[in-house]
Amino acid sequence: MDFKELDREIEFIVELDKMKSIFRQTSLINGTRRENDAEHSWHLALMTMILSEYADNKIDEFKVIKMVVIHDLVEIYAGDTFCYDEKGNMDKKERELKAAEKIFGMIPGKKGEELRSLWEEFEAMKTDEALFAASMDRLQPFIMNYNSSGGTWKKFNISKKQILNRIAPLKRSSKVLNDYAERLIEDSFKKGYITKE
Amino acid sequence: MDFKELDREIEFIVELDKMKSIFRQTSLINGTRRENDAEHSWHLALMTMILSEYADNKIDEFKVIKMVVIHDLVEIYAGDTFCYDEKGNMDKKERELKAAEKIFGMIPGKKGEELRSLWEEFEAMKTDEALFAASMDRLQPFIMNYNSSGGTWKKFNISKKQILNRIAPLKRSSKVLNDYAERLIEDSFKKGYITKE
Repeated sequence: MDFKELDREIEFIVELDKMKSIFRQTSLINGTRRENDAEHSWHLALMTMILSEYADNKIDEFKVIKMVVIHDLVEIYAGDTFCYDEKGNMDKKERELKAAEKIFGMIPGKKGEELRSLWEEFEAMKTDEALFAASMDRLQPFIMNYNSSGGTWKKFNISKKQILNRIAPLKRSSKVLNDYAERLIEDSFKKGYITKE
Repeated sequence: MDFKELDREIEFIVELDKMKSIFRQTSLINGTRRENDAEHSWHLALMTMILSEYADNKIDEFKVIKMVVIHDLVEIYAGDTFCYDEKGNMDKKERELKAAEKIFGMIPGKKGEELRSLWEEFEAMKTDEALFAASMDRLQPFIMNYNSSGGTWKKFNISKKQILNRIAPLKRSSKVLNDYAERLIEDSFKKGYITKE
């Protein structure tokens, strides 16, 4: 058998290992170190399995899981941009588009196209699946921050308004999860994890 | 709304963070440190998305992905047992059964049952999905070892026979992937990554 296509796919699988060295701002709940993209993506996949029933509209859970698994791959080349970093977010789109060409281009044929299309759908945040995937992506660091006495909220003195803005996709995809998150924000304010309105 | 069920699910999601601190024997390909269970599980999910077409029988890819995402959860309490550690593997089953009670018991109702049943199916290694999930679980460290000049094979002087035994599920689930892996074993032998027959 000719392993040419499989060889390229294995090269891609090897490249994925770099996701384990792309560090996010969020720290592990035990505070020992920052979390990386591979761990974060895995966490979102399991969150989706547990929380998808709370979506307001019926969603394709399989698609959401595939989306969250691949949503940060572009960061292998574009790096992680902290969500509250206004300057870094100015050229984020351009950097990530270039990275998408490179990473999804590694896989021949339809499979590469499927991954790229999942990523584009995620980024556009228009379908119910993309909105739910974005909600998981916002809720996960939120839960980590809440459970580590404020985490990056406290560290960077993030305001209530900034956080509400950040979790906006929740409002559009799950009333239950949005209500839950808003309750935690109020509680965080009381506890002093968030100090600015 | 009463958030009682969701509260317990969020507690479970918080508990999942511990997977990021369960370290495996396998090192990252760049050799800087050992890989943890969360990263490993994420890697398997993406491998499944890329490689499921090579399964000999038609498989339910969604199910396999859910399986690989949750397959190591029991290690939060049972720890990681190195696959070539004969002593550690003697009481592995018992330790993991206890851990399964604890971790899957955290989630109320049907969802907890679904996760537990996925884990049991994975462990029993009888269905096509479980065999393919096991194949991913064996192939991933295999690829990491091959791409880091032998990795744990070299470090622990693992024999060709031990490796072939370890990747046995591949033979039962994908002729293509099994042939590919056997080719890499021969190459590893030539390169001195493996020295014992």
